[in-house]
Amino acid sequence: MTPPAVDPDDIDAAAERIGPYVRRTPIVEHDDLVLKLELLQHAGSFKTRGAFNRVLGERATIPDAGLIAASGGNHGAALAFVGQQLGMPVEIFIPSTSPEIKRRNIARFGAALHDIEGYYDDAQAAADDRQVATGATQIHPYDHPATVAGQGTMARELEQQTGPIDTMVVATGGGGFIAGQAAWFRDRVHIVSVEPETSQCLRAARLAGEPVDVSVSGVAADSLGARRIGGVPWTIVREFVDEAVVVADDDIRAAQYELWEEFRLVAEPGGAAALAALRSGAYRPAAGERVVVVVCGSNCDPATVIRP
Amino acid sequence: MTPPAVDPDDIDAAAERIGPYVRRTPIVEHDDLVLKLELLQHAGSFKTRGAFNRVLGERATIPDAGLIAASGGNHGAALAFVGQQLGMPVEIFIPSTSPEIKRRNIARFGAALHDIEGYYDDAQAAADDRQVATGATQIHPYDHPATVAGQGTMARELEQQTGPIDTMVVATGGGGFIAGQAAWFRDRVHIVSVEPETSQCLRAARLAGEPVDVSVSGVAADSLGARRIGGVPWTIVREFVDEAVVVADDDIRAAQYELWEEFRLVAEPGGAAALAALRSGAYRPAAGERVVVVVCGSNCDPATVIRP
Repeated sequence: MTPPAVDPDDIDAAAERIGPYVRRTPIVEHDDLVLKLELLQHAGSFKTRGAFNRVLGERATIPDAGLIAASGGNHGAALAFVGQQLGMPVEIFIPSTSPEIKRRNIARFGAALHDIEGYYDDAQAAADDRQVATGATQIHPYDHPATVAGQGTMARELEQQTGPIDTMVVATGGGGFIAGQAAWFRDRVHIVSVEPETSQCLRAARLAGEPVDVSVSGVAADSLGARRIGGVPWTIVREFVDEAVVVADDDIRAAQYELWEEFRLVAEPGGAAALAALRSGAYRPAAGERVVVVVCGSNCDPATVIRP
Repeated sequence: MTPPAVDPDDIDAAAERIGPYVRRTPIVEHDDLVLKLELLQHAGSFKTRGAFNRVLGERATIPDAGLIAASGGNHGAALAFVGQQLGMPVEIFIPSTSPEIKRRNIARFGAALHDIEGYYDDAQAAADDRQVATGATQIHPYDHPATVAGQGTMARELEQQTGPIDTMVVATGGGGFIAGQAAWFRDRVHIVSVEPETSQCLRAARLAGEPVDVSVSGVAADSLGARRIGGVPWTIVREFVDEAVVVADDDIRAAQYELWEEFRLVAEPGGAAALAALRSGAYRPAAGERVVVVVCGSNCDPATVIRP
């Protein structure tokens, strides 16, 4: 069996590398919960950590054509921010099904934005073609050890902020984010994956014993709608993710609403999914269990968080 | 001359008293700035600190009729939250000119809400009449030492979070909030008041040498639009507020927009005014000056923070 692709030393190195470029995001405590406000990260999601770690690590070999990626929006914004900060051109391919604010978010960091009719896979195909033509370095949203190690810096930072915790509840798309957290905590913390009922690539991989394709839809599809868990994340997820639950779209919308009403936070659907798991009862902590819920993204139209 | 009505010991006592009831709000660092995210406080603004400190201090004498106040909205929401937590009935008088979200925010904490045609003064007159009829304890939004001491707990908490700072930039309405901060820091920190051009009761008091009436309008009037600085705050402001600047409504809107785009925070106009002072150049820090900007309120429709 392939060993875990990322270990805590890689995350220490990533933290050192990206420290000057990323925001130390705050926590808020509420009753027995700790919320990690990673939605306040530069470019509005955790993706900025992984993108910086990968690009800084390969900085010497990035060609003049710069960086290229397909993205539902959050990785694209993160990479556009990275390119702006490091002075590298960036091209992003986004599916037409992603929301307008994600396009704006990419464009405001100066990246060239290509709108591709269809879903993520269509954008990926277009990005692949373009990459062959330009020779730009393609930065995958989640399936690379440097990306996973970068995401894991959030867990390392969190542990400095909170001290010991029992459980971390975290949303899963392609698996890069949860893999980073699990690579840091390993068996020291109970790691709970949350997926929408309508896109469950992590649960499907657990059932199949290997990454398999799933269908994808629902309110969080633009951030969590990966068709298949990444092979790199899977080497970590398989070993260190302890539990995998699902939430309904209505649970996600209710959690977005609670985050606004109770905490004055604007979380996108994918960013609210972890809280939805607690509120819906999909994950039920024991009495006194110290649980961290990660609120991991904010790239949505703020008008949408108020229940109609 | 009347001595300052609140001193650091009062704030220590307030922090002890309200500790179990208020949220420790996080900070975010950005270049040379520290943002204090007091907009993430329970009920969406700093007002919750002062309201708890006053009500807890007088708890033994609150009659069955409970608590009553006039409010542009933030104090009313805070007091409604206090009443809900402590099991006391609350009546709030709000002017018809305050935004809808402030009404919702008061109602969701279970307070009885009276909508009064006109401006804050009209709501205050109605609250006064009603107080005579019911005998409820009236909790003024800012003009009371216990309220000012409660607001000052934010400065005390902040100092634990940041260590030494040079300057604090803070928005001023009736003066209770800035007085609390100034009562804690006294001469140890440079305190800068920010008012909208369209409601400058602190600057007017400095010019007159005493509290005087001013006219009130503009985008932040529902939170910063006090006609006259409170007599209690004035005893502190007079001595420890070092500088008083103003910002235009457009500067406030631009700061709201920056807080959303750059930090993913939804700040109401009054909550964005302090940042507006830096961005407009109304306050210009020296090189290396360590400045805290307080983002103090979030009770607005989130759709309004995106520039049209």
